[in-house]
Amino acid sequence: MSSGLTVSVLAMSLAGTAAAADTTTTASPATTTTSVPASKNLIVLIGDGMGPAEVTAARYYSKQFLHKDRLELDGGYYVGKATTYSQASPYTTESGAVTDSAAAGTAFSTGNKTYNNAISVSNGDVAKPFASVIEAAMKQGKATGLVTTDAITGATPAVWASHVRQRSNQNAIASQFLDSGVNVFFGGGKVNFVTKEEKGKRTDKNIIPDFQAKGYQTAFDKAGLEAIPATAGKALGLFADVEIPYVLDRTASNPSLPQMTQKALDILSQNKDGFVLMVEQGRIDHAGHANDLPANIQETLELDATFKTLIDFAKKDGNTSVVVTADHETGGLSLAINNVYELNVDLFNKEKHSYEYLDGILKKAQTAEDVRQIVADNIGFTDLTDDEVQLILKGDGSSYGRAGGYNAVISKRLAVGWTGHGHTGVDVGVWAYGPIASLVKGDVDNTDIAKSGAKVIGADLAAATKALQDKYLYPMFKVTRDSKTLFTAKSLAETLGAKVEWDEASKTVTLNKDAQKLVVDVTTSAVTVNGAASTIVGQVDNGKLYLAIEAFNQLTGKTLTWDSFNERIVQ
Amino acid sequence: MSSGLTVSVLAMSLAGTAAAADTTTTASPATTTTSVPASKNLIVLIGDGMGPAEVTAARYYSKQFLHKDRLELDGGYYVGKATTYSQASPYTTESGAVTDSAAAGTAFSTGNKTYNNAISVSNGDVAKPFASVIEAAMKQGKATGLVTTDAITGATPAVWASHVRQRSNQNAIASQFLDSGVNVFFGGGKVNFVTKEEKGKRTDKNIIPDFQAKGYQTAFDKAGLEAIPATAGKALGLFADVEIPYVLDRTASNPSLPQMTQKALDILSQNKDGFVLMVEQGRIDHAGHANDLPANIQETLELDATFKTLIDFAKKDGNTSVVVTADHETGGLSLAINNVYELNVDLFNKEKHSYEYLDGILKKAQTAEDVRQIVADNIGFTDLTDDEVQLILKGDGSSYGRAGGYNAVISKRLAVGWTGHGHTGVDVGVWAYGPIASLVKGDVDNTDIAKSGAKVIGADLAAATKALQDKYLYPMFKVTRDSKTLFTAKSLAETLGAKVEWDEASKTVTLNKDAQKLVVDVTTSAVTVNGAASTIVGQVDNGKLYLAIEAFNQLTGKTLTWDSFNERIVQ
Repeated sequence: MSSGLTVSVLAMSLAGTAAAADTTTTASPATTTTSVPASKNLIVLIGDGMGPAEVTAARYYSKQFLHKDRLELDGGYYVGKATTYSQASPYTTESGAVTDSAAAGTAFSTGNKTYNNAISVSNGDVAKPFASVIEAAMKQGKATGLVTTDAITGATPAVWASHVRQRSNQNAIASQFLDSGVNVFFGGGKVNFVTKEEKGKRTDKNIIPDFQAKGYQTAFDKAGLEAIPATAGKALGLFADVEIPYVLDRTASNPSLPQMTQKALDILSQNKDGFVLMVEQGRIDHAGHANDLPANIQETLELDATFKTLIDFAKKDGNTSVVVTADHETGGLSLAINNVYELNVDLFNKEKHSYEYLDGILKKAQTAEDVRQIVADNIGFTDLTDDEVQLILKGDGSSYGRAGGYNAVISKRLAVGWTGHGHTGVDVGVWAYGPIASLVKGDVDNTDIAKSGAKVIGADLAAATKALQDKYLYPMFKVTRDSKTLFTAKSLAETLGAKVEWDEASKTVTLNKDAQKLVVDVTTSAVTVNGAASTIVGQVDNGKLYLAIEAFNQLTGKTLTWDSFNERIVQ
Repeated sequence: MSSGLTVSVLAMSLAGTAAAADTTTTASPATTTTSVPASKNLIVLIGDGMGPAEVTAARYYSKQFLHKDRLELDGGYYVGKATTYSQASPYTTESGAVTDSAAAGTAFSTGNKTYNNAISVSNGDVAKPFASVIEAAMKQGKATGLVTTDAITGATPAVWASHVRQRSNQNAIASQFLDSGVNVFFGGGKVNFVTKEEKGKRTDKNIIPDFQAKGYQTAFDKAGLEAIPATAGKALGLFADVEIPYVLDRTASNPSLPQMTQKALDILSQNKDGFVLMVEQGRIDHAGHANDLPANIQETLELDATFKTLIDFAKKDGNTSVVVTADHETGGLSLAINNVYELNVDLFNKEKHSYEYLDGILKKAQTAEDVRQIVADNIGFTDLTDDEVQLILKGDGSSYGRAGGYNAVISKRLAVGWTGHGHTGVDVGVWAYGPIASLVKGDVDNTDIAKSGAKVIGADLAAATKALQDKYLYPMFKVTRDSKTLFTAKSLAETLGAKVEWDEASKTVTLNKDAQKLVVDVTTSAVTVNGAASTIVGQVDNGKLYLAIEAFNQLTGKTLTWDSFNERIVQ
């Protein structure tokens, strides 16, 4: 701040916010309301699985091999840290103390906590959709984009433009993308767009032509990405069947995250009303799950390079907020093991390919000598002990098999530790640039990322959520042997505004709404509607009454339909 | 902040408080120099071993059992994180990638990196002392204090008021404290103040009477602490032989960290020129080394309660900066293990006593049944498997023995992981209140804590360091079989301004300073001074020439003396 400030500006700075009091201030001394910092554009960069130790590890590498004492992220952008916990699962005994990417993504895209596996829907028997900042921003006329090195239908991109109860429902996520209005989709995950005949996972049809029909330019490799003009308006880039290969394993046809990001910026920044872009480096997480530190570091460094791409844009643009965080830590990485105060940083750059690339090669190894050769070729260690060779041959006991054994051997030699192959609960970092910085500093929760993002661009999350909730419900359901879908009667009826009563004497459940009355005899499962017999299917399972969609239509007078593909009720 | 402030108050607030990057601004448009935020008092709170996961673990506990969603620390005080690496050791092959408490303490107390084990001295063959913020503040007339739950001669307090090459030289540290001028010492560590006859570790004498003679009021238990009046001026409280017991194991005679801290504040705040206080919760680290999460959490929560004590003082006082950080993480804690997205937070409060208390009891266990009973009594687990019992009986293979086995069993049941019993390299958090906050925000290095602390109170670290370096040198040395101390000739002579030359033909080393010339025949170790034979002792060891102190006195004309107790040369 310059020294020539007027009193009124000083006063308003105090009324406004923090590090960037500057951004909260309007010039007029007459203004007395506290203004909110504002940006036209918002960019959210997610390092999936990028916990505190992952960031430190990348910095050690950077210092040793890139002769840079600090990461790009470190350059004055670190503003705080976020709690990541999710909610208890409605399906399992999971408490939510440790989040998955779906619940964490729902939190930082919509501002709401939910259970692990949920893609932007609420918790409970009858879940409701939550709108993301991207969905709210589209109502302001902003362009939007999703970019990732993971499958584009993975949880972290999915939460911004789709709503399903189970993250594994990736075909539905791809289809919802088609109707979402999002301008740019760049990532892997082609399998959920094409049919089984085309080595995909869909049973209905290839939906890529549907995207093209809606004006999306498509690309399937780096050359294709480069060929998309900035004026494309809409673009779908599917650069891998599932994940884009690790940095260590890429070929000339694989685009990098900074390349995809730059193209997305080129396209989205054409929109006069601004844009919201989510970029994910999804494979820090994958390398963490596998416990491959050298691969993990390269992915983190690619996130860091992507951050530079974004910051360069934001600084030039002058009207963009950038926020960076992680959904959770993966693997329980620690930088030193046993009781030795050491880290063999000098070995961090020796791995030529990731465990993923090596996996097929290791599987073919017949002898100890084969293993020694493979390891020597890949990372230069020529002195494996017999125990190390055996650990690789037998695998580490996890689903990673020999590749897991390899990672365990390498990690020990690098002197880094992992406590497993899953996520952990440590707080994650928050970095920011521009007006959003003052809103996400200090100790925040992951939901604050979405709330602050919406605030900084003036998007109305509540209105966008209401619009979705007026249309969709995501109930728990079961499918009978004769393929009839049934819903938990009490929770769904109550969600629809009905009263539900149990009569012990007659063993009946009565559902009432306005003049409509359904009675279910739980002994026979017979359902009467206003006293008259009906063909409505009911079933009691584990002491819980389930009813077919017709029951709820009778009760409400609505025409609710069950969308089995997306596993939701359309109102 | 209310809206009725005058311009001058606004100006001072801006010059004074954190929230604002604006702190560099002065109110007068005419002023062009950048002012530094200023505080009269400085408080540094250190959580030894308090890495990111340790903080998150304590918050999980707080949420579950104290019904507080956030820690006291979380209340808007988190401002950044710090890198912790140290330097390569002059004694071992350690690279310094993972710090110990001595090097980290030297960094955050003096603003300088050094090697592991060094207590506020530089790296190299001839180390030089670095002054701490406390030593510099004393020159401003500020009162100073050191408070810890660890031994007061432990590395973290030691770095603020003593200088030795090896942290293990705790008798010297205690003696240096006596001459330091620091007003308040509260902690454990009585063994380094009393003689072996008194169950201590000193061979010279009990130095507690020397403290009393210098005006220190003394206390040895909680009642004694309470009895010290705020007007004491100087106080020495030694509340344990070594460490004060863990929170879980304390008796009525053990003071808590908040109690010691409050008393220190009462005493130091009497000084009209302000004070600098360092408070350490030293046992988060110990519980981390041992891998006892329930004990670790209680220690972290005690740090959190201490933070509240400090913040309450600072807010009331209005002229105090508080900064909180850690020296490093300990144990490689992760919050979840294997591939399970869960953390058994409901069990975090079940442990009655720490592993340390249990250790003696476990050592006496004869049978599996004994172990089952001990574990059931201490933490309520009545269903130990045979494998778990065996792990406890056999120990975990570390020096923690059966207690280590116990901690391994408990950690697994709590679903937390550790990667060892040592330190790790992850960045640590930084929290702050008051003017210092703007100086330590974002990505900083641990040395920035000292630099910012000195800046905020206007202490001159460079001048204080010069005064120390004019007086002391800390050379590497060796002691001959007949107890003569010798120093590496080349490095010490060069440090003293001499020129050192090797002549291959005559196999002699010539040391030259001004008109003085010493020649050492490395074959015979004979030393001539200006051509005349001398009795100066020399020795070649591993190709390195060592000389007695007399050689350097001859060379420089000074009267350098070797202080073998403190292992330093006094100039």
